[in-house]
Amino acid sequence: MLTSTLPIRIYYEDTDAGGVVYYANYLKFFERGRTEFLREFNIQQDTLLAKKIAFMVKKVDMDCIKSALFNQLLSVNTEVISHRKASLMFSQKIFNEAGELLCQADTLIACVNLDKMKPTAIPTEIIEVITRAR
Amino acid sequence: MLTSTLPIRIYYEDTDAGGVVYYANYLKFFERGRTEFLREFNIQQDTLLAKKIAFMVKKVDMDCIKSALFNQLLSVNTEVISHRKASLMFSQKIFNEAGELLCQADTLIACVNLDKMKPTAIPTEIIEVITRAR
Amino acid sequence: MLTSTLPIRIYYEDTDAGGVVYYANYLKFFERGRTEFLREFNIQQDTLLAKKIAFMVKKVDMDCIKSALFNQLLSVNTEVISHRKASLMFSQKIFNEAGELLCQADTLIACVNLDKMKPTAIPTEIIEVITRAR
Amino acid sequence: MLTSTLPIRIYYEDTDAGGVVYYANYLKFFERGRTEFLREFNIQQDTLLAKKIAFMVKKVDMDCIKSALFNQLLSVNTEVISHRKASLMFSQKIFNEAGELLCQADTLIACVNLDKMKPTAIPTEIIEVITRAR
Repeated sequence: MLTSTLPIRIYYEDTDAGGVVYYANYLKFFERGRTEFLREFNIQQDTLLAKKIAFMVKKVDMDCIKSALFNQLLSVNTEVISHRKASLMFSQKIFNEAGELLCQADTLIACVNLDKMKPTAIPTEIIEVITRAR
Repeated sequence: MLTSTLPIRIYYEDTDAGGVVYYANYLKFFERGRTEFLREFNIQQDTLLAKKIAFMVKKVDMDCIKSALFNQLLSVNTEVISHRKASLMFSQKIFNEAGELLCQADTLIACVNLDKMKPTAIPTEIIEVITRAR
Repeated sequence: MLTSTLPIRIYYEDTDAGGVVYYANYLKFFERGRTEFLREFNIQQDTLLAKKIAFMVKKVDMDCIKSALFNQLLSVNTEVISHRKASLMFSQKIFNEAGELLCQADTLIACVNLDKMKPTAIPTEIIEVITRAR
Repeated sequence: MLTSTLPIRIYYEDTDAGGVVYYANYLKFFERGRTEFLREFNIQQDTLLAKKIAFMVKKVDMDCIKSALFNQLLSVNTEVISHRKASLMFSQKIFNEAGELLCQADTLIACVNLDKMKPTAIPTEIIEVITRAR
């Protein structure tokens, strides 16, 4: 199973007055990780968007284990654990530089036709790539 | 069981190039809802923060059912469904003006001492309020 | 000259690890203020967006005088100080509850056709409203 | 004069329903650029923050010339154009991959003691680095 890893630097924009990363921002990091996972397989989402196709999040189960701090360099690990005709299930983990697990999430993504706002089959070339990656 | 309802207007900042609300922003709306739920019981989180106490999210299970759009006026319903010595479980729902359910989440919040970054007992006056609200 | 005033509550999402509101977020508050200014004159930007017309920021001159803090209730004052065929100049100020000026900005907004990504004349009904407001 | 250059990938989080990068997000990109400029000179802002010192934005003059789009790879150029005892003036430009100038900003930064929320002298080692860089 192929795993993509993306480094993420924590800037002031990511933190809050509690002195740690604001929890909603982990969802941004997970989404960056999924985007770079797809890009490693040469899938560019702006090309999909031009065809009015987008991946939309349907479910997120996130566990926040340990807080990330300002200026830390995190890494996001991304893999696809299952797929159907119009959806993908990603499993992702965020680690700090010491290798400690900070946050993990399972995310169900639907392939959506933006004109109809309805699920649509994932393009064949993406399914092929995902199948190879698993 | 008491429920708090907060109106949320969708601005450009909340949307993305797919034409809908960006998924991470629902976590912001849920957090605003929890803050206003507590404020209705006269619990001000800046007072807690000054004592180095904060509520931190440990788990989120979110379902995104239907997309919210630019300029819509949403409402966030918030209730506490269980509590322990150092944690609260919130159940929240986001509706559009037509009353359609767009998004729902169960969120486990821990009461944390920010100096030690360790769980700490929820202050008694908050527990009393929560107990009355349920 | 008509001035629109919008209350803004500061949530954790708005702050950073320095313990104050993150500077980019003032631009969000100013944009909310402009949106509500227009809405008071019955101009709904989602109707414009459906016609592929949007107001885009061309210039911002912002002064940050005093920091806003977590949980404060701010107010954004908004007025139009000049307008041309395809642009508006807004002057905006953010105050805290004590009436202290925290932040001010002059913002030049262009009316843009999103299909061509070119400036376009501001719709007549908006110019009429703006002229009355000044 | 030394210039630091930082690549920035545009994700869905950065865009809005107008199909372009939301204007407040350029301020995030500029701040990332300043952070990496300082890091190139071995100045780590978390070390400063631990001493209750932070750089705070006092003024921003931003021009938005051309919109950035989803999935583009931008670059942020950063240089210091002047400095005083307790402040720095940065000049920054954002380009797309074709080398077109999208956005530029001059930003006045004050060095602030967070305990007193007052300006404080920039640490000597930073002034030395800045002087060498200019």
